[in-house]
Amino acid sequence: MACGGDDNKLSLDSIRDSLIRQEDTIIFNIIERIKYPTNPTLYKQPCSVNIPDFSGSLFQYLFQETEALQSKVGRYLSPEENPFFSNNLPDSIIPPTKCTPVLHPAAESVNVNEKILDVYINQILPLFCKEADDGNFATTAACDIHLLQALSRRIHYGKFVAEVKFRDCTDEYKPLILAKDRDALMKLLTFEAVEEMVKKRVAKKAMAFGQEVTLNDSTAKEVKCKVDPTLVSRLYDEWVMPLTKLVEVEYLLRRLD
Amino acid sequence: MACGGDDNKLSLDSIRDSLIRQEDTIIFNIIERIKYPTNPTLYKQPCSVNIPDFSGSLFQYLFQETEALQSKVGRYLSPEENPFFSNNLPDSIIPPTKCTPVLHPAAESVNVNEKILDVYINQILPLFCKEADDGNFATTAACDIHLLQALSRRIHYGKFVAEVKFRDCTDEYKPLILAKDRDALMKLLTFEAVEEMVKKRVAKKAMAFGQEVTLNDSTAKEVKCKVDPTLVSRLYDEWVMPLTKLVEVEYLLRRLD
Repeated sequence: MACGGDDNKLSLDSIRDSLIRQEDTIIFNIIERIKYPTNPTLYKQPCSVNIPDFSGSLFQYLFQETEALQSKVGRYLSPEENPFFSNNLPDSIIPPTKCTPVLHPAAESVNVNEKILDVYINQILPLFCKEADDGNFATTAACDIHLLQALSRRIHYGKFVAEVKFRDCTDEYKPLILAKDRDALMKLLTFEAVEEMVKKRVAKKAMAFGQEVTLNDSTAKEVKCKVDPTLVSRLYDEWVMPLTKLVEVEYLLRRLD
Repeated sequence: MACGGDDNKLSLDSIRDSLIRQEDTIIFNIIERIKYPTNPTLYKQPCSVNIPDFSGSLFQYLFQETEALQSKVGRYLSPEENPFFSNNLPDSIIPPTKCTPVLHPAAESVNVNEKILDVYINQILPLFCKEADDGNFATTAACDIHLLQALSRRIHYGKFVAEVKFRDCTDEYKPLILAKDRDALMKLLTFEAVEEMVKKRVAKKAMAFGQEVTLNDSTAKEVKCKVDPTLVSRLYDEWVMPLTKLVEVEYLLRRLD
């Protein structure tokens, strides 16, 4: 999918397989992040220490510098990757791989990372983590960046979902796009039964990946879980799936440009 | 443990709990890394693209720059963290937290990361990953860095293990340290039954965390696993545990300085 040179690969099945695999990545990263408390000092704007030519939070500084570094080795040449801080991103020193683009060129302008970052810091972290500062800023931020990039990849995969749905049912989508009818597009993209299934599956995964594995097989012992499965379900219900559909609608609205 | 202000916290039990939790982190990170092939281009020295004032591999460049960034926000103020590239690491802009050091000051000079990096690139990656280049250099390197930092933290935890063992049985260790008797120290630190248990537990964890979780509960279906549990066991047997014991011995040999 990274390259998408072979159009046959763009099937709803292969996209679904990738989305399912990305759930595992997201849940692993949640479990790793919540080892630490919220660490609010990290996100305070402006940060309490002096960074030359910078006025944002400590986290923003770290994230921006990490993206700049990754951009140099071609991270954002991939249509699956969308930067959080696109201003002044350095060019890649790696030459891009030649491949036929899968998405419409307008895909590049669809980016909901600002929303993802806001929701992450102000709603998701307080929901999952204990409210405290433990001083582990570098390791906490590294976990945040991994988790945010995984969430962003999952949510912006909506572009591929929308593209394949558009190709499969062009006649249905075209008039709604021309009429700029967001509500009707959103309705056409929504499958409640599928969403219920996703919510159930991620909860089940949270239980499997969050379990305390011991060599002792006593079944009497209560199964402890490192992450609350209902919270993972809620994360998908309230943020991941709605934001993915937002990406799908935004992409479709530009699909005929 | 990060601070270790309270000496009572330094018990073999709390260290063991941390080591067990770190197994989960290592296994999550292995599962994430092996989504990608080996990507040998990343580790080729010198790299094929021109980086001003730099002659190492692309991976070394990324890792070094990441460490420099993390150092600025205090990663290496923690006695649990050991840099891979300690030359020219920038100072932390965050003030250090005041706490009573748990380890002997000589702990700082014990660092086996060069060995870890060599073993990782030349033995562990070829064992776990398909041999190929897929061009996903930035994401592959990000996974490498997370996994290497997790392995390094686990292995250098040997300093805490050695410290608590030394405190508990000073009379046994002292003569061997004074005699610089590495072999006797290694023997005193080795518990084969414990090592067997660790190998079994990490294999069981690999099975739990690497399973394909579906809503379909058919037991007839073969359980697929994203990582070979015997390889995780081997990783601990051949590298993680021996390198941890090497750290323990190196630390003990300096313990009376």
